[in-house]
Order: sequence, then structure tokens, then C-alpha cells
Amino acid sequence: MYPQCIREMMSFRDLLSMKLAEGDVARVVGTPNALSAVLAEGAGFDAVWASSFEISASRSLPDASVLTMTEYLAAAQDVQKAVNIPVIADVDTGYGGNLNVAHMVREYENAGITAVAIEDKIFPKTNSFYGSKHSLLDIDEFCSKIRVAKNTQRDETFFVVARTEAFINGLGLDVALERCNAYIDAGADAVLVHSKQTSNQEIIDFIGRWEGRAPVIIVPTTYPDWHVDDMAKLGIATVIYANQGLRATVSALSDTYSRILEEGKTTAIEDKIVPVQRIFELQHLKEWKQLEQT
Amino acid sequence: MYPQCIREMMSFRDLLSMKLAEGDVARVVGTPNALSAVLAEGAGFDAVWASSFEISASRSLPDASVLTMTEYLAAAQDVQKAVNIPVIADVDTGYGGNLNVAHMVREYENAGITAVAIEDKIFPKTNSFYGSKHSLLDIDEFCSKIRVAKNTQRDETFFVVARTEAFINGLGLDVALERCNAYIDAGADAVLVHSKQTSNQEIIDFIGRWEGRAPVIIVPTTYPDWHVDDMAKLGIATVIYANQGLRATVSALSDTYSRILEEGKTTAIEDKIVPVQRIFELQHLKEWKQLEQT
Amino acid sequence: MYPQCIREMMSFRDLLSMKLAEGDVARVVGTPNALSAVLAEGAGFDAVWASSFEISASRSLPDASVLTMTEYLAAAQDVQKAVNIPVIADVDTGYGGNLNVAHMVREYENAGITAVAIEDKIFPKTNSFYGSKHSLLDIDEFCSKIRVAKNTQRDETFFVVARTEAFINGLGLDVALERCNAYIDAGADAVLVHSKQTSNQEIIDFIGRWEGRAPVIIVPTTYPDWHVDDMAKLGIATVIYANQGLRATVSALSDTYSRILEEGKTTAIEDKIVPVQRIFELQHLKEWKQLEQT
Amino acid sequence: MYPQCIREMMSFRDLLSMKLAEGDVARVVGTPNALSAVLAEGAGFDAVWASSFEISASRSLPDASVLTMTEYLAAAQDVQKAVNIPVIADVDTGYGGNLNVAHMVREYENAGITAVAIEDKIFPKTNSFYGSKHSLLDIDEFCSKIRVAKNTQRDETFFVVARTEAFINGLGLDVALERCNAYIDAGADAVLVHSKQTSNQEIIDFIGRWEGRAPVIIVPTTYPDWHVDDMAKLGIATVIYANQGLRATVSALSDTYSRILEEGKTTAIEDKIVPVQRIFELQHLKEWKQLEQT
Repeated sequence: MYPQCIREMMSFRDLLSMKLAEGDVARVVGTPNALSAVLAEGAGFDAVWASSFEISASRSLPDASVLTMTEYLAAAQDVQKAVNIPVIADVDTGYGGNLNVAHMVREYENAGITAVAIEDKIFPKTNSFYGSKHSLLDIDEFCSKIRVAKNTQRDETFFVVARTEAFINGLGLDVALERCNAYIDAGADAVLVHSKQTSNQEIIDFIGRWEGRAPVIIVPTTYPDWHVDDMAKLGIATVIYANQGLRATVSALSDTYSRILEEGKTTAIEDKIVPVQRIFELQHLKEWKQLEQT
Repeated sequence: MYPQCIREMMSFRDLLSMKLAEGDVARVVGTPNALSAVLAEGAGFDAVWASSFEISASRSLPDASVLTMTEYLAAAQDVQKAVNIPVIADVDTGYGGNLNVAHMVREYENAGITAVAIEDKIFPKTNSFYGSKHSLLDIDEFCSKIRVAKNTQRDETFFVVARTEAFINGLGLDVALERCNAYIDAGADAVLVHSKQTSNQEIIDFIGRWEGRAPVIIVPTTYPDWHVDDMAKLGIATVIYANQGLRATVSALSDTYSRILEEGKTTAIEDKIVPVQRIFELQHLKEWKQLEQT
Repeated sequence: MYPQCIREMMSFRDLLSMKLAEGDVARVVGTPNALSAVLAEGAGFDAVWASSFEISASRSLPDASVLTMTEYLAAAQDVQKAVNIPVIADVDTGYGGNLNVAHMVREYENAGITAVAIEDKIFPKTNSFYGSKHSLLDIDEFCSKIRVAKNTQRDETFFVVARTEAFINGLGLDVALERCNAYIDAGADAVLVHSKQTSNQEIIDFIGRWEGRAPVIIVPTTYPDWHVDDMAKLGIATVIYANQGLRATVSALSDTYSRILEEGKTTAIEDKIVPVQRIFELQHLKEWKQLEQT
Repeated sequence: MYPQCIREMMSFRDLLSMKLAEGDVARVVGTPNALSAVLAEGAGFDAVWASSFEISASRSLPDASVLTMTEYLAAAQDVQKAVNIPVIADVDTGYGGNLNVAHMVREYENAGITAVAIEDKIFPKTNSFYGSKHSLLDIDEFCSKIRVAKNTQRDETFFVVARTEAFINGLGLDVALERCNAYIDAGADAVLVHSKQTSNQEIIDFIGRWEGRAPVIIVPTTYPDWHVDDMAKLGIATVIYANQGLRATVSALSDTYSRILEEGKTTAIEDKIVPVQRIFELQHLKEWKQLEQT
């Protein structure tokens, strides 16, 4: 039987309660692997987002339900093992129908993940920014997925985020509100409202009519100049900086690789990159050596 | 039965032959995942090194035989699937004794990997730079591993690099030469001679007495100012820049994560990081969309 | 890049050609793991069926798209590594839409699998015998999947079986024929026609009007008394005994486990079960020991 | 961080306490996969043994440290997910040195496994019945592994069995006792004493001088006529019937496969094998269907 897990670390639910009590926004950053997550924890983030976009991109594969739940779960679990802050796992559509959602909840809960975000696209999904036609799943079918998820969880702290792609699909505010209200009625613990406009207006309009029914999570990829303090004033619960880390990684790798070939040696880049000893720290080498002593 | 694989891409053996004919050095860079490898290929590297150090660090685990062959192989295979340049897989000690080496060769060859590098440390190993006592495996036992590897391979292009840690262990030039000669006699296709001195003198001394018996591979982590043209003049076959990519990644992520929290928004970092569209390219989104059309 | 694999072993395509030339039926048996497959090969079967039903049942999970492609592929690949006869992999619906099919073909081909069978149910599927409503995928959409599969394969020997569930869904002979003809037009290499009637009449009627356009594969689970010689006379290309092995395993395990507890010792079962030395043979212990000698 | 798990199911430690209080022997049977375990639980066994021998044999690979911890853990975890009785995981030597043992404990505990058995052979190991030379690890080094394991566990219920191969190596009673006493001093929770004599005399002699310092676990493969009631009288805590299930499976599969080919149809075997509906039950089909309803 799947073990019921009680963690020493804080669950995402408890983190959110704490932040709400403080009137603060939970700051979350996308990470495709354990190393990134350790750096995010070190920098001071409250939680990490096991991003399907970053995980699939790390494999040089599209964010289009090509990788399987097995692979996304393994990535999210590796991340959670490495940090004491909670992981929010991006689980796309829940990987199929209701049975897939039930199986997903069992597997993620068993793996020690305390929060998942499921979105209202049809399986197989494509990334929100790909410019494909994104048909949304029928609202009742998605509510059914949420109910299955909530009925399946065994630990009361497990947290299910319902993500709507209504704005991404150009369906407007009324549809976004209708869907999010229905998702909360179905049992979702929070909503993630995604927009790819170059301003935050859709989100601001949404908040204006949401009436604080449940925590709202946002992903400001295309409106980067929205300050977190202004999000806090508006009552936004959580901000996810979903893909900036990976984009910074690509810039750094491209630059580093090119310079090595152009310069024929690595002298000039030595002071742009951390020493190997810093990597040892991130591998927890000292702690492992102590573990070995008896 | 394991399939015998013939690739459309060039094997590492053929790459090396081509480079030797041109009097050139094969330039190789460490990559822990497919995305890094795609960037390395794009930058112009001849091959990639599926580095145990980078792969374990990506998991926030020490480079000390803690991850298993299953995990290192999965990482190397993901890399090889994504690029047309050959992968040299860092297989540490071969993951145990002779049977582990035989199993390793079957599995890596089956996965389409054309070159592996096996080192003469005792299992479980620790990273060359960790400052632990690194006992070397008895020379005859390591030669036995090499023979097992060569007897097990089914495709004649499969390439086995024997890596000596003689210099790392402070055993000096005579031991390094004795070991490398024995490894070539046992059937190894090339030697990797590693030194952690802050100059390249040990390597230069080695080359001076090696008499070109087989290709020599080096890893200039601690002597970054050795120009590749000077390596070429000395007859070095391959240079591996083993960990600079990961160190650049850590620098970039640390900086990016800190700035997001400090600045409260991502406006200022936008021009330091690639746009999301660049990630789409690295995911081969366009090619996948074409694949779908029929 | 995925390696292109040429096997020393016979592909399923070549096996089928040989059998057709001999006027014989290819005899195939379901196996959930390598051990079963080694026994099937030893018994004289021509190929093995990496059955989703047997693989999911071995995990005590329903045959309903709950396990992922990753898990089914790992099982099929373990089987293929262990035997010299070809594996036909049961790939259900292709694990989603067209991109999933393309990814599936790359992954299975890369793993050395020479034949896959894809079925015309909607993802997520349920097992043919579960008594659920099985809606079939629109015929054009399924033909599109077949075209994607055939366009994606790189080795010309790769073999795509199109399986129709028309009879299972009670849609009758005309629909079964229409679909199978369309699938062959779309490029499928053979059709698998499944029926759960307690007689073979649906299949016989199908064959009567099929006119030999392409090889026909059948699965006589519910009509066990159809002799293979009679199948041969009718021109059936391949018979898959899909689940009898697993059902025999369950019987044997139930009986063995109960007797151990009832009798309080294992004396009486010793002559009902093979000696441990027989297991050593199936592990190829002797060959592994030779591999170690150098 | 690894989650700390508290299961609804009974841990092996609690099971053993209960059995000891009742003066009874815990009956355990070897299972290579979830299906076998569900049958074992149904038959009435108290726990299951995730046997390296059965798991490697299922892959048609030798029981010689060829499969990795990753693969053995995945198998053990699949078993534990499927049953409410505890799994004792056969972890061989702990997969290498002290760091491997520490990593193993973290991973198994995180996976919800409540008991592991670690043996005093040198890595890479070979199966106890293979007739190879089995050198034992130095006693202090093995005690160090036990201390590392006990120091690493986070849940106090986690149970570490120390298995000695002293008798298997022909080292006699004094050595077996010396080692087992040292292992208990080092913190082991129980000892597993293995003998491959055709009588139980070595074990009886051991018990005679053991003085009940800690629970004793035995594996009566070669002395099948030892009745469990007689074990109970002697104070043996646990009996593991380690490989009879797999040996019964091989018998059943060989017979079934041969008959299908010989008889050309499956009519005659139908009443020797369970119906497909029995497989549906073992897949928990009904429970899954209910899960889907909302």
C-alpha cells in the first residue's frame, strides 16, 4: 500500500497559510532538476515549480505531453528529495482521463510531493506559448478530474491547484471566472490563472471579480515588470517565475561553449564561473563524508 | 537479444580517425543533459562528455558511485538521442567488477553510445578532485576489466578509453606510463591521463615518453591556459572541457534567482536571458509539428 | 540522434515473410517479462507478445492506460534483450495523439523492437474484455496515426500492426472491413482483428471478405479450440496466445503459496517445481561466468 | 528532503513484535513483482521478501550485483505499493560501500519499505547457491555498514536485518556466532542465518548457542521438511520461503507453453489456468472503476 507520508518539511498548504497570514506572496521559481532547486532554496525562494516546460526542454523535447508521467514524476521527486521547501509539481492535464488523475495523485503523494497543478487543456496538451489551438476540456469533465484528485488523496495536506487556460485560449474573463468558480466548487485548493498578454490586465480584471474565494497563483512570464509588492497588495497568493532559470542557463551555456572554442582555452572564463569547490558544496560532499564516518 | 546498432551519425572512433588525419584535436565538452548537448553541438564541439560529475551534481548528489549505472546510462542515452555528434560516456570504474563491466558494455552499446571511459579506481570511486585517498585498482585486475569490455562489445566501432588516476594519486610518471602501456596491451583504444596539478607539466612529461602508442585524451580543468593549438602540436588527440558548463550554469542560476528576489520583478534580467522562443527551437518544436502533419 | 539498429536476430517482418512462404502461421505467446520470454523461446514460439494486459497485471494495475509508455517500453525492451526471437510490442493507442505515436516509434525502434501493434481505441483505453464502453477513434484520426508511425520509422524493417476493436465494440463486419482496409491504405503492415465472441465466426467472416490484402493476426482467447492448422488453411498469418501464460502463473502461485502455509513445510511441493539449478540456467549463469574469464 | 513516512499498514518491526508476543513465526515468501505479492497476501503470508534472486531471474540475469539498486528498489517499491503486508527488501551487500548503504537506506525508507536485509559478502556479490568462492567482507567493515544504515534511518520503525554468509562459506559455527554477535552490537535489528546444507543442523546448532540476543530469520531452501511449528518451538522469529514461487512459475509456464504448441490449441489447458476474470480481480479493476466515479 502506498505509504502515508508526514514530512518534517513544510507542505505547500502550510507555507501558503503562513504567507497569507503575513499578507505576503509566496515566491516560487521554476526548476528542472535538484541542483537548480538547491540554488533556488539558497537564494530564498519559498517553493519550487517542477515545470513541464523546463523538464521537457532539458531533454530537448517539446512541452507537449511527449514525456510521460513516469518521467515528470521522477524529475519532481529528485527535486523534492534535495530541498526542504515544497515542490509544486506541474502535472499538465493529469496525464489523460480520470483514472490517470487518480494514479497521478497516488504516485505524487507517495513520492512526497505536497502540491500539484492540473490544467484544463485536453490531453495531449501543448505549451501555452506554442501558438497552437488549445482546446479546453469540457468544464464538467475537468471538475470531475478535480473531484477524483481530491477523493484519491490520503494526506489532508495534499494540495490541488486548478489551472485554467481560458485567457490563453482567448475565451475572456467571464469564462475564466466561470471555470475557476466551478473548479473551487469541485474541491480545488487554489486556482492558477495564466495569461500571455504583454500586460497584466487580464489578471487584474480577474482578481477584481474573484472576491477572494480561494488563493490565486500567477505566472508573469510576459508581464515581467509587475512588482511582487503590487501583487501582494492585490491579494495574489503565489507568483511563479516559471522559466527564467532555464533561459538564463541557455544564455550562460551558449556563451561559455562558444568562448571555449573561440579562445582555444578556458583562462578567460574562469572568473565568470564558480570554482569546482562550489559544486562540491552543492553536492553536499561534506555531509556525505560525515555520513560515512561511524 | 541486444540489437547491433549502426548509426547514421559518426562514431567517436571515426571522429577520432578524421581528426588524427587532419592533425587536429577533437574538442569535447561536458554535458549533464540533452539541452546542454544540443547547445554544445550548436557551438561546434566535436563530441560531448556525459560527465559523472555533472550528472551527479545535477541531482545534488556526490560524484562517488552513489548514482547507479541505470541512472548514468539514462542520462547518457538522453544526451545521445538529442545530438548527431558522439557521446563519450564517463562510466567511472565500470560500476563494480568484471561482470558489471560486461553488463555495462552491453547496455551502453545497445543504447547507441559509441565510446565509454573506464577508470582505474576501486569501486566505489570518489571524484578526482575530492581530496580523498584514491586507491587504484591492481593493474592486472584493471587490465582484466578492459579485456572483458573489449570481448563483450559486438560492434567493432565501440571505443573503450582507459583512464588512469596515477597522477591524481601522486604515483608519478613511471606508474602512469606502466599502467597506460598495460591498458593498451589489454586492448584499450585510447588512454585518458588526468592530472590535478596547476600546470600541465605532468601531462607534457607523459606525452614525452608515450611514443604515440595510442591516442591520448586530457582534461585541463586545473591548467586552463593551455591552448588547444599547443595540444595539437604535442599530438594530443582529444581535449575534454569537463565541467565548465555546469559551473557557468550555477553562476547564471545563482545570479538570476537572487536578482528576481532582490528586484521583485524580472524586467532587468529579460535582456540577460534568451527569449522563450529560443527554448522552443532547442525543443525542436517546428520539427515536431511537421512530424504530426500527414 | 537515435541509432539506426540492424539486428543479428530476425525482425518480425522477416519472420512473417518466412512463415508466409512456408504457408505456416507464426505462433506468438504473451510474456510480461524476460524470464517468460526465454521460456517461450525455449518452447519453440516464433515471437513473443509484450502484452499490456500481462505487463499491467504483473504490477497489479488495470490495463487502462495507467502505466505509461516509459513503463511498457522498459518491459518490452527487457524482453527483447533476453531473446533472439522478435518481440511484438502491444502499444495500446500509441499513448495519446500523433506526437505520442511519433515519439513511440522513435523510442521503440531505438530500443531494438521490430514490431508494434497500435489499436483504434480512444486514449485512455480500457482492456477489450473489461465490459466498458469502448469508443473507437475516428477512422481518419487513426489513419493519421498510422501515417505518422510509418513516416517516423527509420529502419525499413520496422513493422506496424493496426488493430481494430470494431468487433469488440459490436460494430460488425462492414465496419471492421472498412477500418482495416483504410488502415492498410494508410500504410499499416498488417491488421489485428480482435473478437470476444465465444466462437471464431466473426473472424472467419472477416477473412472471407478480406481478400488477402495484408497479413491478419488473431488472438483466440475466447475461442480456444481453434486449431492452428485450421488457421493456416484459412490464411491467417499470426496467432497470439495473449494471456494464457499469466493465467497459468497465477494458478501455480496460488497453489504453491497456499500449500506452503497449509503444510507448514515445502517438502511436498519440491517435485512440482523446478530445482534452483534450472533457474540458474535461465539466468544464463554459465555464459556470464565465461564472460568474466579473460 | 526525503519525506518521513508513517504508514497505515503495519511495519515489519511491529509485525515481528506481534508474532513474538504470540510465540509464532512470521511467514514470509519471495515475490519478484506486485502480482505475486498480492497472491501471497491473499494466501495469508505475513510479509513478502523482495528477493534479488527472483527479481534478477525475472529479467533473465544472474543474481550477481548486475542489476542496480535503482532496479531492485523499483521492484521492491512496486511490491510494497500493491500490498498491506510489509516488504522485506533483499538489498544484497548494500550496493557497495558505506555511502551506498547510506543512500540505500534513504531511498528505501523514502519508498515506504520498512525492512531491508544486508549481507556480509563483498560487492559485487554472487548468489549463495552459485558455488563460486564467496569472500566475506571484513567483520569491522560490515559492522561499519550496519552503523551507517542505523544512523541514516529517520523513522524509528525502519528495520535492518544483518545476514551472514558464514555457513555458506564453510566458516563454521564459531565464525557465524562471532559475526552475528558483532552485527547486533553494531545495531542490527535481527540476523538472517543462511545455510545450504541439506539438513537444518547448522541452523539448529546456531540457535543452541545464540541465547536469543535478537530475532533469527532463516531461509529453508535446502531443508524443505522443517515444519514451521518446529521452528516456532526453537524460537525462530521468521521463515522466508525465498524462491519456491518463481520455481513454480517456471514449471507452470514451461508446461503451458509446450502444451499450446503441441496441441495446436488451448482447449485442454483452459481448466488448468485461472479465467481472465481472476486477473481482473488481481488488477483491482472494480476498485479502479469506483475511483473514477465522482
